[in-house]
This record gives sequence, C-alpha cells and structure tokens, in this order.
Amino acid sequence: MEVKTSKERIFEEAAILFREKGYRAASMRDLSDRVGLKPSSFYNHIKSKEEILQKICLENAKKFVDGMKAIKKESDDPLKQLQAVIRLHVDIAIKDRSSVTVFNDEWKHLSEPFLSDFLKMRKRYEKEFSKIIEAGVKKKIFRKLNPSIALFTILTSLRWIHYWYKPKRKIDVKTLENDVINLLVHGISKV
Amino acid sequence: MEVKTSKERIFEEAAILFREKGYRAASMRDLSDRVGLKPSSFYNHIKSKEEILQKICLENAKKFVDGMKAIKKESDDPLKQLQAVIRLHVDIAIKDRSSVTVFNDEWKHLSEPFLSDFLKMRKRYEKEFSKIIEAGVKKKIFRKLNPSIALFTILTSLRWIHYWYKPKRKIDVKTLENDVINLLVHGISKV
Repeated sequence: MEVKTSKERIFEEAAILFREKGYRAASMRDLSDRVGLKPSSFYNHIKSKEEILQKICLENAKKFVDGMKAIKKESDDPLKQLQAVIRLHVDIAIKDRSSVTVFNDEWKHLSEPFLSDFLKMRKRYEKEFSKIIEAGVKKKIFRKLNPSIALFTILTSLRWIHYWYKPKRKIDVKTLENDVINLLVHGISKV
Repeated sequence: MEVKTSKERIFEEAAILFREKGYRAASMRDLSDRVGLKPSSFYNHIKSKEEILQKICLENAKKFVDGMKAIKKESDDPLKQLQAVIRLHVDIAIKDRSSVTVFNDEWKHLSEPFLSDFLKMRKRYEKEFSKIIEAGVKKKIFRKLNPSIALFTILTSLRWIHYWYKPKRKIDVKTLENDVINLLVHGISKV
C-alpha cells in the first residue's frame, strides 16, 4: 500500500476542497480539519493557500506541456498528433479530476508573477496545438477551417470530462477516448 | 436612437461587471457608480444583486429553451436540427457576450429555489438536445456514439465563443458558424 506523506495528503485534499467550494471560499481551516492536522503542525507543511494553487496549476500545466512534447517527438503526422493530444486531455482529466478542475477553473486567482507565467505557458501550449492544425490544413489532411476556430472548438470540447467522468458511470476510458476522437476527427454525421 | 431606461442600463452594466469581477466580488456600490446613479435612486430600480443574477440566468435559459422549441417545430431531420442548435448557441454567445458569460459561469451563486429551477431547466434542455442525437443515431444519419459523450462534447465545444468573439477580430459570424458546424458535423479530417 502506498503511504502518503502529510504534505501529499494536504495537496490532495486541497484540490478536492477547492473544487467543491471554489478557491476563494475555501479556508485553510477547512483544509487542516479535513486532513486532520492541528494548525501548528499543518503550517509546518504549507505556507499559504496560494502556494497550493500555484503547485496545482504548475503541475497540471507541466503535464500538458510534457505530453505535447512527447507527442510531437513520436510522430510528424498531424492527424496522429491530434488524436494523441485528445487522448492526452482525456487521460489527464480522468486521472486526477479535482486537480484538473482547479487548474481549469481557479487559475485566475493566481497572483503575479505566477499568473503571467501561467498565461504564457498556456499561450505556448495553444500555439503548439495550433501548429498541428495548421500543418494538417496545409497538407490537406484537415478541412480548410480557420485555425483559431478549430483550435478553440476542439480544446473547449474536452472541458466537460473532469466534471462528468466517474468510475461508476461504467463508461470505459477507451470508449470515451474513441468516441471523442471520432466525433472531432470524423464528425457526428455518417454522410 | 434607442433610449434605454435606468433599469435596462443597470442590467446591462451588471452583466459586464459580473463578467469582469465575478458575481461574488462585484458590489452593488460598483454597479451604482458605473451606472451613475445615487444609491437612493439606484435602489428604486433594483432590490438586490441576486435579483439581477436571477434575471440574467432566466432570460438566457429562456433564449435556449425557446430556440430549441422553434428548431424542433421547423424540422424533423436530426442533422438539420443539430446544425440549427449549433447556430443558436453561436448567435446567443455573440449577441450578448457579458450576459452569456454570467449565465455560464455564475449560475451556481443562485439561491434556492432559483438554483433548483435553473438546474431543472438545464436538464430539460440537455434532454431535448440529447433526443436529437439519439434520433440521428437511430436513423443511422449519425455515427454510433455514446449519446452522453456526443452531447457534452458538442455542448461544451461551444463554450469559448462568448469569451473569444470580438467584432474587431474580423471573423464574420457566418464563417464562425460554418466552421464550427463543419467541424462538429463532418470532423476536422478530410479523409
């Protein structure tokens, strides 16, 4: 059995708490209660609420950035790259739903310079995503769509999974990935 | 020239203020300042912050519900219905970006019984949307996808337009609608 350190448990519970209450409304008192630590010992592990938010946002951003890098290394084919990126989003959303929700919904509470750094990272990621679309359009593998419209439609289309997915829904991850990829790559229409 | 009543200006400015600051952080003082009304006269028009949120959420919900009704009356063809629903979402998002943003992001601050009513309306709307997808799958016009996965992927894919669209982007509404419809109906891939 995996034994978690107090610090790990704090971050895990924080993600759940921030998801449930929102970052602003969540208090450090709630958090220390949930983890079952006295404030004196709690503050040995963690300095501030924002320290937790920074870590959650940074770690998730890194998952996407590293994933994108690996995908581009793996293949030159825009279609394969796009399929792999969609799979990456589904996998990240499913593996740690709380932390992805906080990353998606609460980043705007970061203070400077973390906010600017975060936005720069996001912009760079979108740029890399956009390059896949542009390459596909150029090679005539993809339809001639406005790249920004295609980028945001696809990116945004993946932002329900972390809210919705629960193991008890009994939809396996492969079906989820395949249906989403199928819909975005080939469309809903059969004709 | 259209002359707006004080009440109309209050609701318009409120939507912008809530979008910019978030509903929680926005104060009635900010709002009366923006509209340029003294508190005494301001409170003749409006009772509470939540009254405004209720109106914004209800009016937007009504636009979607009425739009869906009209679309179902207009045609029986699931493909035509789906295209029309996507167009409806784009149009609503573009026409009043602030109010749609508040509707999308701030509804969770509604108090009871408004919150439950709102969620019921949303559920009914999703049900009507789902029926279009199920009918299309049954008639073999649409691919055999899990209807919930298809529903949420499509619904969510439309939730960037109100953030992103600005007249100065010089993308006309027809291109936007056609590209989004094309992507979701026929997919990004040409092959």
